[in-house]
Amino acid sequence: MSHRPDTPTVPRGQTRSQSLREQRVCSDLLEMIRHLQQSLKEHFTQLTTWQMQGLLSLEQRHSGAICKQEDLLDDLMCKMVNLLGSEAVSGLGLRPPLPVLDSQAANRGVRRVSSPQQADQPVPQQRDSEATLVSHDLSSRGIEISVSYHLDFQDYEAYQRDKYHKVKNTLGFINLGTSENKLCTYLLTERLCRSDMNRMENILLQYPDWRGQPFLRKEVACFLTDYCQAPSPLDPENVVILNGCYSIFSALAMVLCDPGEAFLVPTPFFGGFIFSSNLYARVELIPVHLESEVSENTHPFQLTVNKLEQALVEARLKQKKVKGLMLVNPRNCLGDVCSRDSLQEYLEFAKRNRLHVIVDESYMLSVFDGSATFHSVLSLTSLPDPNRTHVIWGTSKDFGISGLRLGALYTHSKGVASAVCSFGCLHGTSGITQYKLYRLLQDREWIDKVYLPTNRSRLQDAYKYITDELKALEVPFLKGGSGLSVWVSLKSYLEPCTFDGELALHRRFLDNKLVLSRGKSFRCEEPGWFRLTFAEKPSELQVAMHRFRQVLEEQKQEWIVKQLADAMRE
Amino acid sequence: MSHRPDTPTVPRGQTRSQSLREQRVCSDLLEMIRHLQQSLKEHFTQLTTWQMQGLLSLEQRHSGAICKQEDLLDDLMCKMVNLLGSEAVSGLGLRPPLPVLDSQAANRGVRRVSSPQQADQPVPQQRDSEATLVSHDLSSRGIEISVSYHLDFQDYEAYQRDKYHKVKNTLGFINLGTSENKLCTYLLTERLCRSDMNRMENILLQYPDWRGQPFLRKEVACFLTDYCQAPSPLDPENVVILNGCYSIFSALAMVLCDPGEAFLVPTPFFGGFIFSSNLYARVELIPVHLESEVSENTHPFQLTVNKLEQALVEARLKQKKVKGLMLVNPRNCLGDVCSRDSLQEYLEFAKRNRLHVIVDESYMLSVFDGSATFHSVLSLTSLPDPNRTHVIWGTSKDFGISGLRLGALYTHSKGVASAVCSFGCLHGTSGITQYKLYRLLQDREWIDKVYLPTNRSRLQDAYKYITDELKALEVPFLKGGSGLSVWVSLKSYLEPCTFDGELALHRRFLDNKLVLSRGKSFRCEEPGWFRLTFAEKPSELQVAMHRFRQVLEEQKQEWIVKQLADAMRE
Repeated sequence: MSHRPDTPTVPRGQTRSQSLREQRVCSDLLEMIRHLQQSLKEHFTQLTTWQMQGLLSLEQRHSGAICKQEDLLDDLMCKMVNLLGSEAVSGLGLRPPLPVLDSQAANRGVRRVSSPQQADQPVPQQRDSEATLVSHDLSSRGIEISVSYHLDFQDYEAYQRDKYHKVKNTLGFINLGTSENKLCTYLLTERLCRSDMNRMENILLQYPDWRGQPFLRKEVACFLTDYCQAPSPLDPENVVILNGCYSIFSALAMVLCDPGEAFLVPTPFFGGFIFSSNLYARVELIPVHLESEVSENTHPFQLTVNKLEQALVEARLKQKKVKGLMLVNPRNCLGDVCSRDSLQEYLEFAKRNRLHVIVDESYMLSVFDGSATFHSVLSLTSLPDPNRTHVIWGTSKDFGISGLRLGALYTHSKGVASAVCSFGCLHGTSGITQYKLYRLLQDREWIDKVYLPTNRSRLQDAYKYITDELKALEVPFLKGGSGLSVWVSLKSYLEPCTFDGELALHRRFLDNKLVLSRGKSFRCEEPGWFRLTFAEKPSELQVAMHRFRQVLEEQKQEWIVKQLADAMRE
Repeated sequence: MSHRPDTPTVPRGQTRSQSLREQRVCSDLLEMIRHLQQSLKEHFTQLTTWQMQGLLSLEQRHSGAICKQEDLLDDLMCKMVNLLGSEAVSGLGLRPPLPVLDSQAANRGVRRVSSPQQADQPVPQQRDSEATLVSHDLSSRGIEISVSYHLDFQDYEAYQRDKYHKVKNTLGFINLGTSENKLCTYLLTERLCRSDMNRMENILLQYPDWRGQPFLRKEVACFLTDYCQAPSPLDPENVVILNGCYSIFSALAMVLCDPGEAFLVPTPFFGGFIFSSNLYARVELIPVHLESEVSENTHPFQLTVNKLEQALVEARLKQKKVKGLMLVNPRNCLGDVCSRDSLQEYLEFAKRNRLHVIVDESYMLSVFDGSATFHSVLSLTSLPDPNRTHVIWGTSKDFGISGLRLGALYTHSKGVASAVCSFGCLHGTSGITQYKLYRLLQDREWIDKVYLPTNRSRLQDAYKYITDELKALEVPFLKGGSGLSVWVSLKSYLEPCTFDGELALHRRFLDNKLVLSRGKSFRCEEPGWFRLTFAEKPSELQVAMHRFRQVLEEQKQEWIVKQLADAMRE
């Protein structure tokens, strides 16, 4: 067969008119970019002139944001022009006229940050409680990620290294800081070990459908239709399965926002969201601050549309580009549920402002107070803006199996579902696990008659135990009826009543091998709030509360001693 | 056999590769322009701030050149973005996602350009074989990711939707395009179903140690010590487990490089690395082009230090910041192994140039030619630069269980291990699966006496079958002795012998329901190479080769008819 040479100018098969049109587009673009480049140059020249005339000091120009911006603009220009001149568009006949640009910044000899230390040496980077190994082999981004991760997760890592065990390690950490349900572990292990779970088909071992296995997506759609009381059956094609709700949230942040854009999130909210929205997506979470103080007709930490409006206006004044609103229902740390009316109002606020709404409904089956009713956004008959409403749910919280790594997205927007499934190959979950979870969600008899009633009653018992303890200690807490934790105020134990005081108390708990979560990590504006997870095995919860009491007593004792000493001095 | 409908997206007559390339260029451009736009905005905001602080008078800013420049810059931005979103480039699939820009100048009372489409409507975004939904609800980044993912994975998605089955779907796709080992699926399912696999401890259901469960890290360290013949026991603290090798590679790219930095990668290399290094890390993979032509003392596609040196020099001349070298050993598509001496040379080259080396050893147990010996970098007694040498391995290829999602990193650098484990909470794998894989790796008796000999002999048989077929067809191929695929040259079937011709032949295979991988997607510089995975069940491999033969015959037949017609005309 004949071998024709490549045709560099007009790609084969392309029509002449297309090619001409595209060349025209590119040369128009090129002209604009050149014009833009020239304009920028003049702009900078003008700034330099002012500087020379003394209208602008060198400090003003070069010490702050402006200098960085100039470098950035310059660098971008170079990249654009070089791109247009690159191999990539050589077929469009643009390459020859384009000179390759050198960055002006480089020509001006602008800062080049040199490494302050020898390479190859792991550098002990001091952090809160211990040294972390941060190697010079890492990129700047790598160092930032590593340091930020280990700071955020240090208590959790300490717990992982040294867990309490009632026989083997009685001095280990008890963790009431992570929101996990350990009340029904035995029930779950028994169910997950039954013979129906062990089917091992070929497709489970091979590369999957990256949106999640079709049988599982179908089951999740069906499950959510029933338990969220959707007015019509949900569509499996709108379900995406990834390895956990963190991953779903991160993927949503990637596809709904560009870097630097933002979501509004009412406080207190789970700090893990900050990590997940920042690691890859670089999306800012703007807190909508709620207060514990109540006025007439409100309850503590109530979210109102007024507060949302206000937060949005303030954010926009600061030039933030707000793309969405993140809601958690039932509320993770506060333990309450949104009323149907409130929910509708929040969604209408979002629609008015063209905001996406992500609703994390991970605790929807963990409502243990008989008088509270959970309303899923998927239950609303007239969703204000369906294409911008996205629901996250997973088995981690409601079934206490966070180690199995299942997070599900339900969105009415096929475009969003299609974009989120792009993340499947980096956030896929094991086929074997997908099968087990499919069987689990399918077993309604067991869920409705065994698991849910047992879980609800154990949550009630644990909640009663911990709140009785808190009452005995006269520690104020928010009355809750859902979720796995209670939101308590230890303001009166802070000395001083600041976030430093809160941190000091938090450390005191850690010294007593008790991990709690402090308000600051939930972006709570008032110091002194702590989240205590009560869905812990009763025996461990008792030990934990014993440690808790001890710390508070020590703290009080110390305060009395200090007061006495102060009095003596006077 | 079915015939695919015409492809409306790609302008008629334009080839898919052109379209892909141009989409890529346009989306890169788009991103730069958005970035530029944001930067300009910040720049102007800063000027406004100065003005408000009295550092710059209104007159200075608005009376002279500056004001005009600002309007001009702004106007240019709008024009460029609107041009990119215009009819002119609609064939590049960019129109729907592009919001039409309002000029800042317009906000100041000048022009306003309105959006050409209603929001909220999912816009059918035509792509090669079908419509993909790209919604206006997505960010620019979201659109880019979604389009690029569906373009990269479209053959795989078609296969997932319509798989061959010898009874239920004899007209479905057979996939020799994905590197998967299906020869021992039954052995694996049987092993993974045994009773020892079903232990269900609490810790497997709860949030894990995000570096990977300690028992599994220990087992992986032990396994690699033995099978890589490490001179001394490897340290479990240097192992990180994530959900697949893709995730490990992506995490390494994140922590070793800053955005825009690069790795050298010898071609042909697996295209999935491009997706994984780009999705989050934005790290460029610079191809080190190897050739099929041989001179004295070389073999086809041989990697030499000279080629590495040359690629590095060229990259640096283009101002690329090269941070590392990626090697695959045994080589995935070529099927050969690196000699110990070559390996040592590559590592020394890297050390001289202060480059990291990532070695993907995912096929280390899939060497089926008795005369070939695999040398792991972990076996070297004097590793030139241990802190910059990182090994990836997983169970997907060597055990044919890609659906179980296990990827492992071994690095001598504690800093790198510590940084990579930051990714655990977004790339964690199921506890139950971790336990099963721990048991599997621990069962050396079964691995050494049952699995490995069976797998090796089946790989030999499948390789013999496919290469006998290729010989009968007189199709040249590279002699291999490891891995799951064979690298074949179909140059003589290309008309023309270009990447367009390669693509046309690839489509012809797809029309005949056969998925293969073509050289272009491995960044091979010479058109006409294809990768055929032979580790397929014998019955399916037979059907696949029947389809393969049919396509080549059709292709040849068509060529003869064309030659005759040409001759008649003359």
